[in-house]
Amino acid sequence: MQLSIIKIGGNIIDDEGKLAAFLDSYAALPGLKILVHGGGKLATKVAEGLGIRQHLVDGRRITDEDTLKVVTMVYAGTINKNIVAQLQARGCDAIGLTGADGNIIRAHKRIHPTIDYGFVGDVDSVDASFLTNLLISNKSPVFAPITHDEKGTLLNTNADTIAQELARGLGRSFDVSLVYSFEKSGVLLDINNEDSLIPRITPDQYEDLKARQLIFAGMIPKLDNAFAALRSGVRRVIIGRAEELSLLLAGKAGTTIVNE
Amino acid sequence: MQLSIIKIGGNIIDDEGKLAAFLDSYAALPGLKILVHGGGKLATKVAEGLGIRQHLVDGRRITDEDTLKVVTMVYAGTINKNIVAQLQARGCDAIGLTGADGNIIRAHKRIHPTIDYGFVGDVDSVDASFLTNLLISNKSPVFAPITHDEKGTLLNTNADTIAQELARGLGRSFDVSLVYSFEKSGVLLDINNEDSLIPRITPDQYEDLKARQLIFAGMIPKLDNAFAALRSGVRRVIIGRAEELSLLLAGKAGTTIVNE
Repeated sequence: MQLSIIKIGGNIIDDEGKLAAFLDSYAALPGLKILVHGGGKLATKVAEGLGIRQHLVDGRRITDEDTLKVVTMVYAGTINKNIVAQLQARGCDAIGLTGADGNIIRAHKRIHPTIDYGFVGDVDSVDASFLTNLLISNKSPVFAPITHDEKGTLLNTNADTIAQELARGLGRSFDVSLVYSFEKSGVLLDINNEDSLIPRITPDQYEDLKARQLIFAGMIPKLDNAFAALRSGVRRVIIGRAEELSLLLAGKAGTTIVNE
Repeated sequence: MQLSIIKIGGNIIDDEGKLAAFLDSYAALPGLKILVHGGGKLATKVAEGLGIRQHLVDGRRITDEDTLKVVTMVYAGTINKNIVAQLQARGCDAIGLTGADGNIIRAHKRIHPTIDYGFVGDVDSVDASFLTNLLISNKSPVFAPITHDEKGTLLNTNADTIAQELARGLGRSFDVSLVYSFEKSGVLLDINNEDSLIPRITPDQYEDLKARQLIFAGMIPKLDNAFAALRSGVRRVIIGRAEELSLLLAGKAGTTIVNE
């Protein structure tokens, strides 16, 4: 059975009009689907309002106890429940979840030799069986980027990683298309030229493009993740604009990353 | 099959120690169970921090757009997800929900001849079939007091009402015990004397106690609701301290309200 896992980020969440248009196309998408959303600017605004300072180490945001409270509020509360209510209004039977709910995504606090990232989670495992149960009951899970450590602590977790781990966990039971929404139309040969889109990349082509230094450096971690997902059982990874969702899944827009 | 539906309010939620002790006893409770939590003081604190003024009309809090944002954050985000994570840590497979999730609780914005309560929901119906599916999958739903109108709007909804509507919706399939946690040990003949507890009340006894004006006026709405729940198919309603949860369910503490 086909399953689409779609990740959207702040550029969609922060723009009411873009979000509404995206949710229209998401609700209209046929078949089984899971939405994973990131954070956006509201968390920063709420933290500022509550007088909570952001801590950065080497340019990375540290999730201290107060920041964890804010992201839990904003991601799992405001953003998640508003997306769910808006999908319900569009006839899509959404159910909002964090990784703690139903113990779906187990994680641990990130261990790093020099930096304490605070309450940031690295994923250990995904409960594919409960998710499958929800999907076959025609529920569409909507994930906030929060997991837990099974010891009572919630953990701020990268939404790209959650999408990838869900795709990996469900790749054995479903034919998974993993869509990363992106502010560009896909993988570009020239970052300033949307016409330089590469519609399809296989591992061999990727190695070749990398060797010839034709891939924009900022894209490499995203593409490495995409190929890692393919190796772990995901059928295809698609990178492109959330605004073109149905075209992306039809292979008519964005960059499709496949094994062959 | 037996099902316990337990509602806790601000007096438990606001007190970290009481909440932890309650969650210990809740997690240890055998059988199927649903937890419904109210709000507590955090929403007021967050609203104040964000400079959002509370509006009261005739002593009733009005849920304007900003207040709805705050209660969604705090109830569905902070409180709900922390309870879920803490139950998971205690081996209880909790799943946090609002009425919007899976379209479980459909409501409409309250219609009142003179007061606009704002985004306050009155419940229309409960999807017992999806809840049953979760319960038999050994998930323990944890409800935040938020519903939706199926048109994209979230609605602040009284937690007692949610507990009662869930009990009513599930009363056909389960042998439901509905527990209202309370700051007193149960229904008292003398509000200042905990020894005046009435351990058991039937409809006839209630009419008699009311006629003789032996029931404290403040308890009458709660008891009227309890008898309404019995009439709608709930097996028994128990009122007492959340701290005595297992004793309440064993009929060894609190006031049990039954048909006969």
